[in-house]
Amino acid sequence: MSQRDQDTITEAVLASFAQTPDARLRTIMSSLVQHLHAFAKDVQLTEAEWFHAIDFLTRCGHITDDKRQEFILLSDVLGLSMLTVALNNDKPEGCTESTVFGPFHVEGAPHYAAGEDLANGAKGTPCLVRGQVRGVGGEAIAGAVMDVWQSDAEGLYDVQRADLTQAQARGVVTTDNQGRFGFRSIVAVPYPIPHDGPVGEMLAATKRHPWRPAHLHFKIQAPGYETLITHVFNRQSDYLSSDAVFGVRPSLVCDWVEQADGSYLLEYDFVLNPLAA
Amino acid sequence: MSQRDQDTITEAVLASFAQTPDARLRTIMSSLVQHLHAFAKDVQLTEAEWFHAIDFLTRCGHITDDKRQEFILLSDVLGLSMLTVALNNDKPEGCTESTVFGPFHVEGAPHYAAGEDLANGAKGTPCLVRGQVRGVGGEAIAGAVMDVWQSDAEGLYDVQRADLTQAQARGVVTTDNQGRFGFRSIVAVPYPIPHDGPVGEMLAATKRHPWRPAHLHFKIQAPGYETLITHVFNRQSDYLSSDAVFGVRPSLVCDWVEQADGSYLLEYDFVLNPLAA
Repeated sequence: MSQRDQDTITEAVLASFAQTPDARLRTIMSSLVQHLHAFAKDVQLTEAEWFHAIDFLTRCGHITDDKRQEFILLSDVLGLSMLTVALNNDKPEGCTESTVFGPFHVEGAPHYAAGEDLANGAKGTPCLVRGQVRGVGGEAIAGAVMDVWQSDAEGLYDVQRADLTQAQARGVVTTDNQGRFGFRSIVAVPYPIPHDGPVGEMLAATKRHPWRPAHLHFKIQAPGYETLITHVFNRQSDYLSSDAVFGVRPSLVCDWVEQADGSYLLEYDFVLNPLAA
Repeated sequence: MSQRDQDTITEAVLASFAQTPDARLRTIMSSLVQHLHAFAKDVQLTEAEWFHAIDFLTRCGHITDDKRQEFILLSDVLGLSMLTVALNNDKPEGCTESTVFGPFHVEGAPHYAAGEDLANGAKGTPCLVRGQVRGVGGEAIAGAVMDVWQSDAEGLYDVQRADLTQAQARGVVTTDNQGRFGFRSIVAVPYPIPHDGPVGEMLAATKRHPWRPAHLHFKIQAPGYETLITHVFNRQSDYLSSDAVFGVRPSLVCDWVEQADGSYLLEYDFVLNPLAA
């Protein structure tokens, strides 16, 4: 029976995890305990603040359902999501960089043929998106499967509209024999992350805004290559320097070029990293 | 627009909190971000592990309701609750030490007069609990209000029994003119914290048991004194050296003494710290 005071409790908790059979889990729990305790000591956490944290996490849990994920939002606005992406996607020079996945991807989106319009009725300024998917060695990647998803002109994803029964501004396209793709959609606009919950309260209390700069989401899969999860950001957008989720990387910022008919053209090539042999 | 890689993102997140009006909140968020990021880097957190953590927190949120608080359990088994108690209850020599509050306190428990039995039908070996409440200067504290709560002989609190409509093994007693108190109850037994949820899974995966040594809870309030939240532990109990929530302090361990009739007697005095003038 050891003393449980602020100088000895961390050792006692670490000792309690010493018999963890899985070495990786033991490493994670030990590091978590050390950093969690160091945080509490650094700020001399009060009991009222501890209770506030318990209540905050509880409310994050209660607002989370199959359409809303407050813990991912929390991770996003604390930069943990982007840090995890950076830690796990250290690709060779020349590869397209990754960014956060976000909470709005949907498995099983409709497939579109080359040149088709995946807006599917979503409101916005028309645009054409085209480019090539290559390996870092320069080889074209035929048959790459590209999930594309984005907000509409009001800054909402289809899954945020309770009245919608079909996918809008969301679809799957496939590259041709030369690795080329092309689809029609609408121009993405900035939008706020959901901020009517505990994470939104935290942003307000810290004078942070909830906005993300305009972007298109991509998830690109091809046999023999690492899956790429990224965005392309619009260089004309507000919030490029203050993305609420810290997802902007300069290499992912691109121009949507206005055409004579008022529509826009985005040209962007993606470069994938081969899987390790 | 700054680079968002693993070497720069922490600075970017800290900068985002720089305009927080409340200085204390700014301090807390800055420390939290630094420790959270340091943890992710130390363990080189993978994306699969990140997702597992999101799912774990989500499940903690969904099992939590007005009778079950999984986030407090999580804080308890990580030693954060006891560390917070230790950080905030550094009392003068001679004062009774504090320990964790736990999730089973109920406001508005029934009041009992001196000598009455607050077991109120709960099963267990009868015992008498008596003692005195004093200030650290030795003065008796009359009219101190003592909340007492404990498990029954099966290791369950009344609030864990869905069929119960009245309080059992739970009550409020008041000290007399000499600061003395006395009540009848039952002998507390060891019990496991609720371990059928995510926290229980974590304990199982790390080969930790969920048991707490036998104890009585006290919350003692008196005008002019700091409120004391503590337990008295039974010296004969198992798990004194491996309390699942790290709450045992040697000064709180005491003897329940068997009497000729098979009942027990616990004598324990509490010493409160005067509020700062």
